[in-house]
Amino acid sequence: MLVKGKHYRTIWVEDGDKETVKIIDQRLLPHRFEIVDLKSVEDTAKAIKDMYVRGAPLIGATAAWGIYLACLEAPKSSTVHFESYLKQASFTLRKTRPTAVNLSWALVKQLQTVYDADTIGEKINAAFFGAKKIAGDDAAQCENIGKHGASIIEEISAKKNGDTVNILTHCNAGWLAAVDFGTATAPIYEAAKRRIKVHVWVDETRPRSQGAKLTAWELGQNGIDHTLIADNTGGHLMQHGMVDLCIVGSDRTTYTGDVANKIGTYLKALAAHDNGVPFYAALPSSTIDWEIEDGVKDIPIEQRGDEEVKYADGLCGSEIKSVLISPSGTRAANYAFDVTPRRLVTALITERGICRADKEDVLRLFPEKKK
Amino acid sequence: MLVKGKHYRTIWVEDGDKETVKIIDQRLLPHRFEIVDLKSVEDTAKAIKDMYVRGAPLIGATAAWGIYLACLEAPKSSTVHFESYLKQASFTLRKTRPTAVNLSWALVKQLQTVYDADTIGEKINAAFFGAKKIAGDDAAQCENIGKHGASIIEEISAKKNGDTVNILTHCNAGWLAAVDFGTATAPIYEAAKRRIKVHVWVDETRPRSQGAKLTAWELGQNGIDHTLIADNTGGHLMQHGMVDLCIVGSDRTTYTGDVANKIGTYLKALAAHDNGVPFYAALPSSTIDWEIEDGVKDIPIEQRGDEEVKYADGLCGSEIKSVLISPSGTRAANYAFDVTPRRLVTALITERGICRADKEDVLRLFPEKKK
Repeated sequence: MLVKGKHYRTIWVEDGDKETVKIIDQRLLPHRFEIVDLKSVEDTAKAIKDMYVRGAPLIGATAAWGIYLACLEAPKSSTVHFESYLKQASFTLRKTRPTAVNLSWALVKQLQTVYDADTIGEKINAAFFGAKKIAGDDAAQCENIGKHGASIIEEISAKKNGDTVNILTHCNAGWLAAVDFGTATAPIYEAAKRRIKVHVWVDETRPRSQGAKLTAWELGQNGIDHTLIADNTGGHLMQHGMVDLCIVGSDRTTYTGDVANKIGTYLKALAAHDNGVPFYAALPSSTIDWEIEDGVKDIPIEQRGDEEVKYADGLCGSEIKSVLISPSGTRAANYAFDVTPRRLVTALITERGICRADKEDVLRLFPEKKK
Repeated sequence: MLVKGKHYRTIWVEDGDKETVKIIDQRLLPHRFEIVDLKSVEDTAKAIKDMYVRGAPLIGATAAWGIYLACLEAPKSSTVHFESYLKQASFTLRKTRPTAVNLSWALVKQLQTVYDADTIGEKINAAFFGAKKIAGDDAAQCENIGKHGASIIEEISAKKNGDTVNILTHCNAGWLAAVDFGTATAPIYEAAKRRIKVHVWVDETRPRSQGAKLTAWELGQNGIDHTLIADNTGGHLMQHGMVDLCIVGSDRTTYTGDVANKIGTYLKALAAHDNGVPFYAALPSSTIDWEIEDGVKDIPIEQRGDEEVKYADGLCGSEIKSVLISPSGTRAANYAFDVTPRRLVTALITERGICRADKEDVLRLFPEKKK
């Protein structure tokens, strides 16, 4: 997507320099746009752990590139030494964010790719193209989600005789969380490409404010009309006909259609349901959980530190500072996700198409998962 | 209520000094507790306009004391000059927060009290006792709301065999918004007095964060167990049985039972309804609108500046600072209130008792309002 008019992915290697992986330091957004060079496994582990990069798909892609960097720095004396170094690197990378499913998945896939190649030279080459493929596949999946989702926006636009379609989104399920296009944002970017008039209500998404910081920034950079709102606002807007549809991402979706996503998603789904506003979750099929039946009961919800709730950070003069909002002694609870039950979800938008949020229709799109 | 173990109201005059009205500078809470002296109409107007004090009941009481201070500084040469000065003072005070209904009401009431007295000496005296009565009446109303509401908490506690009752509240409808006890908090303080075990989930309440700043502080000062949460969190808690009831305040309630309150209240009412959690609004009858039938359609919703949404403020080192969360160029919308339709409200808690959120039952409690 565009940053200051130039096209970027969230992770890339430039043609002239195959020894450097480049990422955006997302901790500084929206206040500063800084590109960071990853030149080692250590750099890569730090970038994931310290959240220079975040978002499940992007974490996976970054780990894959980390294995490539490990190949460059591994001892070349023998295949055994070479591969044992990669194993150690994989371990280092895996422990950076232990709960991210895509991280393990990308590491396992990359190691297999390397093991399958013959010579050390070929292994390095395989790691390079393996990482490229993982990133490329993610971008392609998101692009497909965009195409399928844009058809929904197109229909609403037609019903409104071409008037602006108002879309509410929560958190950042944007290109910054993926490699390109994003999940919830992909249909919006695609609709804009098709010259459909869209306007996005951007939920701030406390406590980490990824909506205010990241979604507002990436939509702005890509010329998408948008308005930032406090998380409290969406219900009022829907009551008054100011939202045509909601599109959110998903961190885990049961194959029965329950959607775990950033905390607060459930409240917006309730408001959408109460006001007859369609509510969609956009997700690559890698986030579908093929085991869990009842998402509300069985998806474990991560609890994070209370300082995220008690503090807010942002630009103060020219520096990024953190301010304490509550009394210092206050206890806070910080549930990171909630689960929206399938009955509140109009449909799922996946890379293979759109399906109802129920077992039958999910399995229609993914018949290979039938047991 | 208590601050550092000492009892305070939000506005008072000390026995030894009848020329000074004392208030708490609420702009500095929770980080600093500073008492400010009001010695003139000018001081009083500034305190209301610059939000040293806020909350409809407290604004009314402050304006009433402002008229008393106007009596002290008015020319005593003749009743005409004296009263013309008061009129001017009333005008100055009224224009500080033009939308606050209690402000006009208190000013009209105080002027009438002064006009009704004979000599200038008696008028000054009448203004003193008039202001005292307006403040005292508010405290008494809140105390009654507390007694009626505590019976609801008591019942739930009995059903739970004395286990802790978990109450969710939004924004600050606490003693800081009134003269004493508060509205939504009054039943909580009264329940604690009756030795019922209570725990309060405190919504942060972006964009102004009155929950994190004021409710967390006043509950803490009064020994009420509580946990701060992001506004996004309440739905998840209710889904998982962690909330026994919700109590919120109200800025305006139609006599048909629709409740206008801080933005985000509607979302919590939806979650309560979806999970079978009782949802109460606690309010003095002065906030009941006896004209409007359909609150969602007809209650006008104030829009405030977008900087409240884009920024957050709090303690940074030893200073209170403001940080920009979003990109600086981002547009934000800031609707201050929303309306919860009566169908989502279990009951209203008023100073006269508890009633269903419908016309018939509201008029049962306030039969003098029947047309």
